[in-house]
Amino acid sequence: METSTPSYPPTERTQVKRLAKRGVYDKEQVHAILDEGFVCHVGFVLEGQPFVIPTAYARAGEQIYIHGAPASRLMKSKEVDVCLTVTLVDGLVVARSAFHTSINYRSVVVLGKARLVLDIDQKREALRLFTNHVITGRWEQAKQPTDQELKATSVLALPLDEVSAKVRTGPPIDDEEDYALPIWGGVVPVVQTFGEPMPDARVMPGITAPNLG
Amino acid sequence: METSTPSYPPTERTQVKRLAKRGVYDKEQVHAILDEGFVCHVGFVLEGQPFVIPTAYARAGEQIYIHGAPASRLMKSKEVDVCLTVTLVDGLVVARSAFHTSINYRSVVVLGKARLVLDIDQKREALRLFTNHVITGRWEQAKQPTDQELKATSVLALPLDEVSAKVRTGPPIDDEEDYALPIWGGVVPVVQTFGEPMPDARVMPGITAPNLG
Repeated sequence: METSTPSYPPTERTQVKRLAKRGVYDKEQVHAILDEGFVCHVGFVLEGQPFVIPTAYARAGEQIYIHGAPASRLMKSKEVDVCLTVTLVDGLVVARSAFHTSINYRSVVVLGKARLVLDIDQKREALRLFTNHVITGRWEQAKQPTDQELKATSVLALPLDEVSAKVRTGPPIDDEEDYALPIWGGVVPVVQTFGEPMPDARVMPGITAPNLG
Repeated sequence: METSTPSYPPTERTQVKRLAKRGVYDKEQVHAILDEGFVCHVGFVLEGQPFVIPTAYARAGEQIYIHGAPASRLMKSKEVDVCLTVTLVDGLVVARSAFHTSINYRSVVVLGKARLVLDIDQKREALRLFTNHVITGRWEQAKQPTDQELKATSVLALPLDEVSAKVRTGPPIDDEEDYALPIWGGVVPVVQTFGEPMPDARVMPGITAPNLG
């Protein structure tokens, strides 16, 4: 059954080298991680120097849209080699030994060429996906962007071709003899939650906050 | 008063270009962001291709220690140009217009040369800082690493020289005429919390979970 799941073929660059057992190439798992996160870190190179910036993103099938602004360093050219990484932190892995202390996480790394989206309808679709990525249906509630606003927004598209995920789950793996020590071992869950929506000072009477899907 | 606060001098590479008003160079604010996060994204370049990997880190004064493993791509050389980025997500900024929808966040970008730490006592100190970064006093409770374990861990040190932070706070900034629309506007807080510690199957009787500072 596992072998029939569509997977991203590992390349020399995406083959998980460190702790290979944590490597995941299964498309469904990769998509699930990408859809759960909403801030990615995009790496690019300028004059030999790597830069890593956080930004919003959304997935559309086998493509990721990255949100940006025309003035940003990332958006200077029509095509740029990037590494896009999404990381979800799930827990602190508290081992009996400091050495085996770790973090439970799920991360996806996408390598490839990100291309500036020029078509205005595709840009609109990307903005729709950004807007609905966290708050389902928000695009339909909000005021739609004008063509001028769409021109003032830069969107990059990155294909999901060269992709790998890395996942650590479960309890600490201590050395066998250390389990006899009077030291606590286990996992402290790390949870990202949404608090109570805080209206700004100018919300019209009777307008309620959006539901968080 | 502001001017007497120690700051990181902006360079051509760290000058915040996009929305310059969000740029922060104040050391105290930069330190606070670095100390609140515990997973960073490190970017480096291999054969022209950027890579971005998530990893644990800790700050020691004007230096950051990055945790790694000797087999990882990052740890292949004694000195490597990196960009280390820490991002804390604080809220969804729900504007009346899709265009002004945003995210409240605090991020720090550090550029520089990360150097492999070879001295075993400095490595031990870095591991102590990683271990205590999230759970205060955990290093003192846990089994200390052996010299062999320290050799099996790679640590990089990155000076805090070329540093900038970027911060967005507060409500959405809608276009003036949009405040009259019957659309909700405000902020949905995003909060990272720790759940109830889950002991693994082999914790000795009477041993209680560590306190999360």
